[in-house]
Amino acid sequence: MPELRKDPVVGRWVIIATERARRPSDFVAQPVRPVGTECVFCAGNEHKTPPEILAGRSPGSRPNEPGWSYRVVANKFPALRIEGELEPAGEGLFDRMNGVGAHEVVIETPEHTASLASLPVAAVADVLVAFRERLRDLKKDPRLEYVLVFKNHGEPAGASLEHPHSQLIATPIIPIMVAEELTGAARYYQLKERCVWCDILHQERRGRRRTIVEAGGFVALAPFAPRFPFETWILPAVHRAGFDESGVDELHGLAGLLSDFLRRMNRVLQHPPFNFMLHTAPLRGGELESFHWHLEVIPKLTSVAGFEWGSGFFINPVPPEDAAEALRADAN
Amino acid sequence: MPELRKDPVVGRWVIIATERARRPSDFVAQPVRPVGTECVFCAGNEHKTPPEILAGRSPGSRPNEPGWSYRVVANKFPALRIEGELEPAGEGLFDRMNGVGAHEVVIETPEHTASLASLPVAAVADVLVAFRERLRDLKKDPRLEYVLVFKNHGEPAGASLEHPHSQLIATPIIPIMVAEELTGAARYYQLKERCVWCDILHQERRGRRRTIVEAGGFVALAPFAPRFPFETWILPAVHRAGFDESGVDELHGLAGLLSDFLRRMNRVLQHPPFNFMLHTAPLRGGELESFHWHLEVIPKLTSVAGFEWGSGFFINPVPPEDAAEALRADAN
Repeated sequence: MPELRKDPVVGRWVIIATERARRPSDFVAQPVRPVGTECVFCAGNEHKTPPEILAGRSPGSRPNEPGWSYRVVANKFPALRIEGELEPAGEGLFDRMNGVGAHEVVIETPEHTASLASLPVAAVADVLVAFRERLRDLKKDPRLEYVLVFKNHGEPAGASLEHPHSQLIATPIIPIMVAEELTGAARYYQLKERCVWCDILHQERRGRRRTIVEAGGFVALAPFAPRFPFETWILPAVHRAGFDESGVDELHGLAGLLSDFLRRMNRVLQHPPFNFMLHTAPLRGGELESFHWHLEVIPKLTSVAGFEWGSGFFINPVPPEDAAEALRADAN
Repeated sequence: MPELRKDPVVGRWVIIATERARRPSDFVAQPVRPVGTECVFCAGNEHKTPPEILAGRSPGSRPNEPGWSYRVVANKFPALRIEGELEPAGEGLFDRMNGVGAHEVVIETPEHTASLASLPVAAVADVLVAFRERLRDLKKDPRLEYVLVFKNHGEPAGASLEHPHSQLIATPIIPIMVAEELTGAARYYQLKERCVWCDILHQERRGRRRTIVEAGGFVALAPFAPRFPFETWILPAVHRAGFDESGVDELHGLAGLLSDFLRRMNRVLQHPPFNFMLHTAPLRGGELESFHWHLEVIPKLTSVAGFEWGSGFFINPVPPEDAAEALRADAN
């Protein structure tokens, strides 16, 4: 019997289509493997990108020259522009404003054929620290309300360049999906006086049916009502609203867990295309008792079609308990 | 300068990335053309599908034999099952219920290589009447709250069979995307005492920048804040909440407009993969003053990636004014 499950934060229902259930091996798509060997993001081509905003550099190396371990640069084809004012205006009953914001690329390594799963944990930690630094810096711009850090890995997941990179887009509006989480979590907090993600963590760590791995102060788990097969959330084990409040030690712990998780995913699903998205508190949120930051990882294994676009329901053929079991079993 | 635009019903913002703007011809993907010539949905193979629930039949022909113009059958691999009770239950802080519902396929024609764009208008009207009949019939089942009619055309848009067909999924819950429209529209109605879609139609028919074609009592327009390039909404020109209230004459008018629109889309975008989704009032809604049914058509031209999945923002490189102009210009 298929099952309907409700996300406890945003109230979205998903269909766990057990009768369409498939084994992890049924999902093996074209593995994501670099085809090229050099690109604009590679060491030596620094002049082909916009100038770096931030970089991890070896002593004595100079900006926009080799000698870096990661670089943050403006996106050459930005979705939003940093210049100008919002100038919100109406057009009859419609609302518009200028597309003010920031769109940056985090080049995660100078190595074209590396990946977050293959890099040393210290290098992954440096990338996470870069995310934090950019969040802290963009917070100073009063026009901005939110920074979404995300990654598209592999062409089917929307990556146009194969060199390992993440992106961030800073917006003058809190994105609707984050706003829905904030609202849902505030409602839960009002009722229970507890953070809903803290309660989820408490229940899941006791039950262990959907936990995947726990280490360094972080937990990777399959959510109860996942939209996608093998969707995974990574959360700090203790309450923390803003990613930008994380200490370097914490981010080192996260790097270890993320790296472990990505290798598990690569083994079970054979290097799938995937996205990750960081949901942290809004820039102007202050210390939120009700919000708990989390990283959502979604392997790109199924297609989204008319039913999903029309309803907001998702049909997921893999129960999260099965996904967690497969990912748990496949230890280092 | 890119522009941020807000959907007046659900409050979702989209980014119209004018600097990434592309011409319609830049979107030409692999055109959707049937490769096969016969399948389980073809005339003569009626025994290979579940028995028909409804069909348009020539006099003297018998159920589940040739002689039909359209057939409605149960989906062989249903996302939800018609048997059983919902039995809602908790699992700690989570909520679940049995996946009770209906999942049906509307085989639109016996011809494998036809399409809604190439069929005679009368045949398209028959398919629309079939949608209406199924809505009316499923309304009798008190366990169901909503019926979403949708179409996946072409493999990139999620179609697993190329024979022309639509689907419907009936759910025991109002889908979140419809619920958001109902809430937004009710809020607007409270403020204005008018239906928001009626107001949109009024404004757009005067401005004519985003209208595409108007005929037979229906209007096709590019919405002000479209998620996708060439997204189009088709609405009755006068207020109507439930698709199932439509008379046969009205559905004939809709068939003419839909057919015209699909041919325009096929010429401008060279037979793209696409989805359509029918948003009608919930089964138990009664006569809603605030809701106006509409058919959303989304050609599958761009990929949805981490930013969209994480934020709910969509980046659309084609301003709807340009899309409407291209589709308007390309008349029959």
